[in-house]
Amino acid sequence: MSFADGLAQAARAIEGHLRRVLAEHPALPVVEAMGYAAGGGKRLRGYLVLEGARLHGVAAEQALWPATAIEAIHAYSLVHDDLPCMDDDDLRRGLPTVHRKWDEATAVLAGDALQSLGFELVARDECHPDAGVRADLCLSLARASGARGMVLGQALDMAAEQAEAPLTLDQITALQAGKTGALIGWAAEAGARMARAEVAPMTGYAQRLGLAFQIADDILDVEGDAAQMGKAVGKDAGRGKATFVSLLGLDGAKRRAETLVTEACDCLSVYGAEARNLQEAARFAISRRT
Amino acid sequence: MSFADGLAQAARAIEGHLRRVLAEHPALPVVEAMGYAAGGGKRLRGYLVLEGARLHGVAAEQALWPATAIEAIHAYSLVHDDLPCMDDDDLRRGLPTVHRKWDEATAVLAGDALQSLGFELVARDECHPDAGVRADLCLSLARASGARGMVLGQALDMAAEQAEAPLTLDQITALQAGKTGALIGWAAEAGARMARAEVAPMTGYAQRLGLAFQIADDILDVEGDAAQMGKAVGKDAGRGKATFVSLLGLDGAKRRAETLVTEACDCLSVYGAEARNLQEAARFAISRRT
Repeated sequence: MSFADGLAQAARAIEGHLRRVLAEHPALPVVEAMGYAAGGGKRLRGYLVLEGARLHGVAAEQALWPATAIEAIHAYSLVHDDLPCMDDDDLRRGLPTVHRKWDEATAVLAGDALQSLGFELVARDECHPDAGVRADLCLSLARASGARGMVLGQALDMAAEQAEAPLTLDQITALQAGKTGALIGWAAEAGARMARAEVAPMTGYAQRLGLAFQIADDILDVEGDAAQMGKAVGKDAGRGKATFVSLLGLDGAKRRAETLVTEACDCLSVYGAEARNLQEAARFAISRRT
Repeated sequence: MSFADGLAQAARAIEGHLRRVLAEHPALPVVEAMGYAAGGGKRLRGYLVLEGARLHGVAAEQALWPATAIEAIHAYSLVHDDLPCMDDDDLRRGLPTVHRKWDEATAVLAGDALQSLGFELVARDECHPDAGVRADLCLSLARASGARGMVLGQALDMAAEQAEAPLTLDQITALQAGKTGALIGWAAEAGARMARAEVAPMTGYAQRLGLAFQIADDILDVEGDAAQMGKAVGKDAGRGKATFVSLLGLDGAKRRAETLVTEACDCLSVYGAEARNLQEAARFAISRRT
């Protein structure tokens, strides 16, 4: 199966799983908003879980739990990021953001409940027969999401907007390691954790992929098409915010992303040809148009 | 040790534990806000964990992890509840709310990270040697926090504010079972879960205690003193919102709370005299002034 077909298939599987899990919830606007927020998207993080699991011999029906979990956590972070007090965005994936379609209170609560849902999905018996694995997935997910992971990156991002001097390359790299890198890292490692295998190759892959992904985001913010991306572009440049593009230049940023993707692919050499899909995923991360 | 001394000791232990855990985090405003939000308070939920654990022969140093976890989750819910788009409160425990002391974005992020921290605390190895227990604590905490527990209650509360007819007694009872009951229930059951014992007596106790606690809150909203409580009072009546007091009358609400506390205490009879502190905790829940 090609990478594109695999990604589409993963997206469908995650979508269906999420629908089944949300159907166990009461019919309320906040639950509808959870499904809306967690619907669509590239599902790259979920795909990384599924492929990482396949690579380590973990059954797909088990891997679907952490794959859906990481998409729930990612969706929660987007809903809260889009709030007026944060990035104040009206559009996400071409549709009104949750606080525009419902209201801010619903967006806060839907985000909160999506975070709880993420932990529920990896803690449930169906996720893995070994409770040690489930506890490990919960612990690593909590660390990746919290104030030493994703929230740390978001907080550094906020601090940067108020700082007088633009960030240096090292500072932006640290910021992004939290903001986008932490969840991508967890996604890539989850399959190895489920197999109780060494996570290091997946960690090395994910660190480089995460950074390349963010550089590609910065490039898309300059070169991208708002209609195609379904969200506002040019926001960072408009704010005079330091980005990989402002620090490295457009060509420099593209070269850096290419190098990182090559390195990411090399990290997977221990897996041989079986890692082909993940290597294609890394190339996709920097060639995507949305 | 008297109940009051036990509660004060539990509060100190939880406070210290939280400080140690937050010291593992980077020094950032969002982390400072997490400590600020999770500082102070009655610590009734944490106390329930510690006493429930003692009752089931669980070591205090292990029980401190879920006790601190439930206080982190409770603190996150208060930070988000206080936001302008939710209850829009300026004061909490006599101090400015997080979004007043910092800003709304910091409040959203600090709440989000406190939720992650709650899951981290119960998933960590130090919490319990048995990974099955840790996974069970994570799963039950996720369910208690999410859109079938606390967030469900909050969403029903929001819906009630927009509804044309005031809620009935059954509807308010269901709402409160989620909004305050779910976390109180989890707190009371955690010790039994850690001992892999039957949770039913603690569940029965907590259901009645949670409801009595909320009725007492409604009574305090009418009779309480804003300065002593450190937050605004009279808000519900001012909004014409149905409460246990508006539905049962002040005397009827007090009688109902008394009956619930008696029933809650009866649920613990299987534990004999050892349950004395939890029985006093139930009486405290309806006699407190804050």
